[in-house]
Amino acid sequence: MSGESARPAAPRPIRLGMVGGGEGAFIGAVHRIAARLDGQYALVAGALSASPEKACRSAAALGLAPERAYASFTEMARAEAARPDGIEAVAIVTPNHMHAPVAAAFLEAGIHVICDKPLATSLAEARRLQELATARRRLFAVTYNYIGYPLVRHAQALIAAGALGEIRIVQVEYPQDWLTEPVEDTGQKQAAWRTDPAQAGRGGCLGDIGTHAFHLAGFVTGMQPAELAADLATFVAGRRLDDNVHIMLRYASGARGMLWASQVAPGNENNLRLRVYGAKGGIAWRQEQPDALHLSPFGHPTEIVTRASPAVLPAGQRVTRIPPGHPEGYLEAFATIYAEIAAAIRSEANEAVTFPGIADGVAGVAFIEAALRSSENGAAWVRL
Amino acid sequence: MSGESARPAAPRPIRLGMVGGGEGAFIGAVHRIAARLDGQYALVAGALSASPEKACRSAAALGLAPERAYASFTEMARAEAARPDGIEAVAIVTPNHMHAPVAAAFLEAGIHVICDKPLATSLAEARRLQELATARRRLFAVTYNYIGYPLVRHAQALIAAGALGEIRIVQVEYPQDWLTEPVEDTGQKQAAWRTDPAQAGRGGCLGDIGTHAFHLAGFVTGMQPAELAADLATFVAGRRLDDNVHIMLRYASGARGMLWASQVAPGNENNLRLRVYGAKGGIAWRQEQPDALHLSPFGHPTEIVTRASPAVLPAGQRVTRIPPGHPEGYLEAFATIYAEIAAAIRSEANEAVTFPGIADGVAGVAFIEAALRSSENGAAWVRL
Amino acid sequence: MSGESARPAAPRPIRLGMVGGGEGAFIGAVHRIAARLDGQYALVAGALSASPEKACRSAAALGLAPERAYASFTEMARAEAARPDGIEAVAIVTPNHMHAPVAAAFLEAGIHVICDKPLATSLAEARRLQELATARRRLFAVTYNYIGYPLVRHAQALIAAGALGEIRIVQVEYPQDWLTEPVEDTGQKQAAWRTDPAQAGRGGCLGDIGTHAFHLAGFVTGMQPAELAADLATFVAGRRLDDNVHIMLRYASGARGMLWASQVAPGNENNLRLRVYGAKGGIAWRQEQPDALHLSPFGHPTEIVTRASPAVLPAGQRVTRIPPGHPEGYLEAFATIYAEIAAAIRSEANEAVTFPGIADGVAGVAFIEAALRSSENGAAWVRL
Amino acid sequence: MSGESARPAAPRPIRLGMVGGGEGAFIGAVHRIAARLDGQYALVAGALSASPEKACRSAAALGLAPERAYASFTEMARAEAARPDGIEAVAIVTPNHMHAPVAAAFLEAGIHVICDKPLATSLAEARRLQELATARRRLFAVTYNYIGYPLVRHAQALIAAGALGEIRIVQVEYPQDWLTEPVEDTGQKQAAWRTDPAQAGRGGCLGDIGTHAFHLAGFVTGMQPAELAADLATFVAGRRLDDNVHIMLRYASGARGMLWASQVAPGNENNLRLRVYGAKGGIAWRQEQPDALHLSPFGHPTEIVTRASPAVLPAGQRVTRIPPGHPEGYLEAFATIYAEIAAAIRSEANEAVTFPGIADGVAGVAFIEAALRSSENGAAWVRL
Repeated sequence: MSGESARPAAPRPIRLGMVGGGEGAFIGAVHRIAARLDGQYALVAGALSASPEKACRSAAALGLAPERAYASFTEMARAEAARPDGIEAVAIVTPNHMHAPVAAAFLEAGIHVICDKPLATSLAEARRLQELATARRRLFAVTYNYIGYPLVRHAQALIAAGALGEIRIVQVEYPQDWLTEPVEDTGQKQAAWRTDPAQAGRGGCLGDIGTHAFHLAGFVTGMQPAELAADLATFVAGRRLDDNVHIMLRYASGARGMLWASQVAPGNENNLRLRVYGAKGGIAWRQEQPDALHLSPFGHPTEIVTRASPAVLPAGQRVTRIPPGHPEGYLEAFATIYAEIAAAIRSEANEAVTFPGIADGVAGVAFIEAALRSSENGAAWVRL
Repeated sequence: MSGESARPAAPRPIRLGMVGGGEGAFIGAVHRIAARLDGQYALVAGALSASPEKACRSAAALGLAPERAYASFTEMARAEAARPDGIEAVAIVTPNHMHAPVAAAFLEAGIHVICDKPLATSLAEARRLQELATARRRLFAVTYNYIGYPLVRHAQALIAAGALGEIRIVQVEYPQDWLTEPVEDTGQKQAAWRTDPAQAGRGGCLGDIGTHAFHLAGFVTGMQPAELAADLATFVAGRRLDDNVHIMLRYASGARGMLWASQVAPGNENNLRLRVYGAKGGIAWRQEQPDALHLSPFGHPTEIVTRASPAVLPAGQRVTRIPPGHPEGYLEAFATIYAEIAAAIRSEANEAVTFPGIADGVAGVAFIEAALRSSENGAAWVRL
Repeated sequence: MSGESARPAAPRPIRLGMVGGGEGAFIGAVHRIAARLDGQYALVAGALSASPEKACRSAAALGLAPERAYASFTEMARAEAARPDGIEAVAIVTPNHMHAPVAAAFLEAGIHVICDKPLATSLAEARRLQELATARRRLFAVTYNYIGYPLVRHAQALIAAGALGEIRIVQVEYPQDWLTEPVEDTGQKQAAWRTDPAQAGRGGCLGDIGTHAFHLAGFVTGMQPAELAADLATFVAGRRLDDNVHIMLRYASGARGMLWASQVAPGNENNLRLRVYGAKGGIAWRQEQPDALHLSPFGHPTEIVTRASPAVLPAGQRVTRIPPGHPEGYLEAFATIYAEIAAAIRSEANEAVTFPGIADGVAGVAFIEAALRSSENGAAWVRL
Repeated sequence: MSGESARPAAPRPIRLGMVGGGEGAFIGAVHRIAARLDGQYALVAGALSASPEKACRSAAALGLAPERAYASFTEMARAEAARPDGIEAVAIVTPNHMHAPVAAAFLEAGIHVICDKPLATSLAEARRLQELATARRRLFAVTYNYIGYPLVRHAQALIAAGALGEIRIVQVEYPQDWLTEPVEDTGQKQAAWRTDPAQAGRGGCLGDIGTHAFHLAGFVTGMQPAELAADLATFVAGRRLDDNVHIMLRYASGARGMLWASQVAPGNENNLRLRVYGAKGGIAWRQEQPDALHLSPFGHPTEIVTRASPAVLPAGQRVTRIPPGHPEGYLEAFATIYAEIAAAIRSEANEAVTFPGIADGVAGVAFIEAALRSSENGAAWVRL
C-alpha cells in the first residue's frame, strides 16, 4: 500500500454487497469502513437484517438504492447474480450460524465471499463450503483481521527468515472483560447471540476470540499445533457457552504453546497478545499497541521496532499507509485485508495475496471442535 | 459518530476538490483517506501539483474525470464555481506559502475551504483571509487534526468541567527525529520544502509542528498564553530554518507553561504529548498512544482512561467509532475533523461543531510570529 | 517497617550464620545484604563452601572471625550450639540437594533455620524436616522472597477483603532467558548446578522458578489449586532437566489458572508476573516494576496503585521504607522477609508474621512432585 | 561493586556519625540504610535533633551508646575528635540552613563530611566551605544520590564515548506532587521546613529538587550550561518559596536545554527524567524505572538497555549488585554513593571515585542563585 497515490490508475470500485450488519451491529460497520478506507469498494446492495423492516431502514441509512435493499439473502443472491451491474463480492457479517448458508447461496450464485469468523458452526459444514468454493472457483476470504497489522506481517517475515532460530515457545492470549457480568440477560445484542449456542455454535469465547488467537499464532509462526489439551470454563452463572479458555499446545517440531482466551478478565478490553521464543531470540506484540513490536535477540537489548520504520521488512512496509509515530489501528488493519481481497478480485497477481482464505476458516473450525472435544474429555490431548 | 449506521439517512456525499497532494505527497493522501473514511465526501476535482504533467497523472491515478484534473488552482476555482455540480469544498494541501493564495481564490469563488496548517506565512496574510472568509460567509477549516482524537475531546471536557481545578501548569512537547540529518540536501521532498523559507515561511519546526503543540494545549486547557519567551535553534549545519523550539509560556491567570518542539530528537517519531496540572489533579496524553489518557486526581491513584470506555465524557464518546481496545489512530482522528466539517457544511446545527476554524489558523500564525520575535530578541517576553 | 527510627529501642542484632554463599555465589550475597539492610542481624559464622579452602577465603572476605569460619556445616552446627554466643539462626544458601541435610543438622542443634527454596529434593524429605522443626520448636523460614514486595502484600489484602469478588482466573508466569543456550557446558556455576539433577533435584526450571510462581499465586489469592496438568519440556539439547514449564490449574472453588515458567524465553530477565481476575475486578503485578500494581474494578478505569501511596492497605504500608516514587526493589523485598523473621525470633508477637514458613516449603516440593508426575503421564490431572 | 564477596578481605567498618535525622525525618533514615547496605560503615555517634530530648530518644532507638548521643553538633564535633575511636565521617541530614555550620564544625575537627544537598543557603557560604575543606584536606561529599544509579553511570559513559555524537538538546524534568496543597500549614515536618526560607534558603522546589535535576543533567552530559533563563512560580496561596520552576538553558557548545521542576504536579511522585539528544542518537531515563535506559541510535530502533545486562558499560556494571530483572532502586543507588565515599576514605585509589564532591555542591548553589536572579529579572539570561 504505502500511499494509494502510488497506484498507476484508479481502478473502478468493486461492487460489494452485505448480509447482516444492520442497526445495532458492530462488525458490519467495521467492514463498511474497512471497505471504504482505501477506496476500493462501493457498497451497493444489502440484506442487512433478518427483520425485513430493519433491513429496509438500515439500507436507507446507508444510501443503498431501494431496489437493492433485500429482505432476504437468498433473494439478494439471486437478484444480484442476475443484474449486469450485480455485486462482485458479498460481505457476510451475520451471527455465526448464518455464515455457512449465506456463503453457500452466494457461492452458488457465482459471487465472491468475504465472511466473518468463525467460518461455520461445524467442521463438516466448513468443509462443504470449502468444496463449494473450490468447485465454483470463487474467492473466499475469512476476516481474521488481526493479521492485517503491519507489524504482524513483519513478525511473520522475521520468523520465516529465521531471525528467532528454531521456534520453541508460543504464548498467545486474548483476554477481554465485557462478559464479566451476564449482560446477555439485559438484551445487549452483541452478548446475546454470542452466548446463544443456536447462533454462535458450540464455542463461546473459544469461537469468538479464541479462534483469532489461534489464527494469529499460526500465521506468525508458520506452524500449526499437532495437538492440544483444553480446559474450558463458564464462570457466569446461567451462561450457556464457555467464557474462559485455557489450552496447552504441542507442535510436531517439539515446540510448545499456551493459549488463553477470556471474556471475563476485568481490565482487559481487547488485549490480544503474542509472544514467540526461539533459540536465537524472542518477539512480543500486543494488539492494543499495534505500532510497536518488541524484538529481543538473545544476549542483546530488546528493540522497539515501530511500524513503517526502516527496520520493518517489506511484508510489513507494504501494508502501512502513514509514517511511524502516526498511529494506525484496528480499522486500518481490517482495511488492509479488504484491500488485499480487492487486489485478488482484480487478479493483480503481482501483489502478494496474504489475506486469510477458506483454509484458514476451516482450520479455525477444526480448532474449535478439537478444543471442545479435549475439554469434554478432561483436557485430554486431541490431534488437530 | 459512534457508528455511521446510527444516522437516519445516508446523505449525498459532499463534492470535494483538492489542491496539492499529488505524487510523493504525504498529507494529501491523509486528507483523502480522512475524507473517505466516514463516507461523507466524494473527491471529484483537483489541481494536484504545480507541475501540470504531474497534476494530470496524479488525477488519473485517483480516478478524477479528465476535465476536472486542472493544471492550475485558479482555473480550478473558476471552472468548478461555474459547474452546476461543482465542488462544495476544497482541501488545500500544498506547501505553506500557497495556502493563502489558493484559499483566497476558492473563497472568492464561493467555495468552502479546508486548509492545512499553518494558515499562512504572515499574520497580515492570515488576517486578510479571515476577513475574506467572513465577507464571503464561507466555512473555513484549518486541519489542526490532533484535536480530533476522542481522548483529547474528553480531556478538554474534563478541564472545562473543572475536574482538575484551576490550571497551574501546561507542559506540551512535540519531538520528532526525521530531520536529525540534513535530508533536505538529498532531495527528500517533504524535508526540502519544510526547510525552505520561501515555501515554509519563517518558521521551520516552529511552524510545522510547534503550531500543533500550541493548538493542542490551547484547545484542551481552554486558555491562550498571554506571553511567551522563545529560544529557537538550528542544529543541522546549513539548514535555513529552526529545527528546535524552546518556549516558556505565561497565562493571564498566572498559569505557566513550557513548549518544546524538535525535529532533531532521535528516538521520537511523532511524539506529541500534553500534560496539564491543576489544583485538583493532572492529566497526561501522548499522541503515539492516543487511546489512553492518564488522569491523576490529587491524592488518588492515576487512572488509565481508555477511549470509548464508560469513563469518557460525551464529547469524547461522540467522536469514537469502535469499542475500547480496538485501537483508533491518526487517520480516524483526522477523519473526525472531516466529518465535523461535513456536518457543518450540511448545516446540521444540532451536532457540535468543534473542528478548528480560521480563528485557530490566525492564532497559529500569531504564535509563530511572536515566537520568532521573541527568539530574535534573546528570548524576551512577547505578548500574544 | 516504614522507618526503622520508629522503633522504640534498638534491639541487639541477631547472631546469624550462613551455609553456602561463598565465592561466586549469587543468592548468598543477596541474603547477606537482606540481613544487613534493616540492621537486624550480624553475620558471625559460616561454612561458606564445600571446599574448605574456599570456605576459609570467603569467610575472611566477609570479616568472620577465623575460628568461626568452618570447613563443614556439621562442625559448624555443633560448635556454634556449644558457644554461649553461638548463632541464633542459620541461612542455608547451598544448591538444593544440601538444603535438607544442613537444615536438619541445625534444627538438631537447636538453631533457627532460614532456608532457600525449594525446601528439599523430595516430598518425603521435606515432610521429615517439617516434623523435625515442629519437634524441636525451631523457627523455619523458606525464602520465597517475592512475597516481600509491599504491593504483593497489598494485593493479598485486597483479595482477602473481597475487592475482586470471587476469584475466577489466575494467570501467573515467570519467564527468564539466561538458559537459552547451554551455558552449563561453559562452567557457569549458577547454571551448572541448576541443571544437574544430583544437585537441583528432579525439577529444573520447575524447581528453580516455577515454585516461586506457584507460591506467589497461592499467597496472593489465598487459594491452593486442587489439581494440575503439567507439560514440561527441555529445549536445549543435552540439558538434563526441564527448561520450560506449562501448567493448567484447577481450584476447588471452580477457579482456573495457568502457570508458565521458562528459562529459555529471550527478552525476559526475571519477568515474574501475576494476574488475578474475579467477578468484580482484576489485578496485575510484575516483579520487574514492583512499585506499581494495576487494579481494574470492573466497569471503571484501571488504577495504577503505587507503593507507599495512600491507596495501599496497612499490610503493604507496613513493609515499605521510603516514599512512593523512590523505587524499592528486590533487595528491599528480601530484607523484609529477613526483618519479619527477626521479629519472630525476638517473639515480638505484636507484629504480623507473614514470612513463608516450612508449610510453604513443603507445599512447594509437593507442587514439584505433582507437576513431574503429571508431565510424565502426558499432562494428566494430578491432585495436589 | 557486583558482589561484596569479590572483595579480597573484609575491611573494618568506617565509624560514622550523623547530625539530624532523628524521629520523623525522612532522609536521615535513607542515609543510615545506605551506609549499612554494603556493610562499609558503623553508625556510632549522633546529634540527631535540635531538641536534646528528641536527640536522646532517637539515639537510643538507633542503638547508639548513651555517651555518644549528643545534644549539640558542636559538642559532638569536639568530643568525637577527641576520642581515639572517634567518628571518621559525619553525615549531615539537617534542614538546609544548618548544612554549612555543621559541616564547618566537623571540618574544623578534622572529620570527613557527607552532606545532603543543597550544600548551603548562599553561594558565599558554599565557597567558604569549599575553601575550608581544601585547607583541612578533608573529603567532602554532597549526596546528589541520583547519579548512583547504574544506568546513569552507563549513560554518562556512553555520551563520553561519543555514542550520541555532539550533544544538541538536554531535556530534564523533576516533577513531584506532594506540595499540591498547603500541607506545610498542617504541621507536616518535611513540608514545613522546605517551604520556610529561614530553613530551606531562598529556593523552594528549586533548591529541593531543581538542583538534583541540574546535577543529573550535568553529570550525564559532561556539560554545564553557560547561561539560563528562569521563570519561577508559587502556586499555592501563602507559600513563601517557589513550587514550580521553568528554566531554559544554553550551553557554550550551542546545545540547548529545558529544566522543569515542580512540587505541584499531581500524578508525579518523584518523576525525575532525563533525555539527551545528539547528532547520532538519543537517550531517555526515568528515575521511577531506573533499571531501563532507552537508547535510540538515529535511524535504528530504540533499544531498552537494562541494568547489569551485557550492553552496560563498565562504569555501570561496577555499581550494580544483582542480576538484571531483579530491580535495584533508590536505596541501592544511595548506597553506591556511600560505598564510593568509603572507598575514598580508605584511599583505595584503584577504584574510581565518582561520588559528587564539594565542587558539585558549590555548582548547585550557584545554579540556585542564578535561577533566582534570572527569575527576579523577568527570566533574563544569567550566566552561570
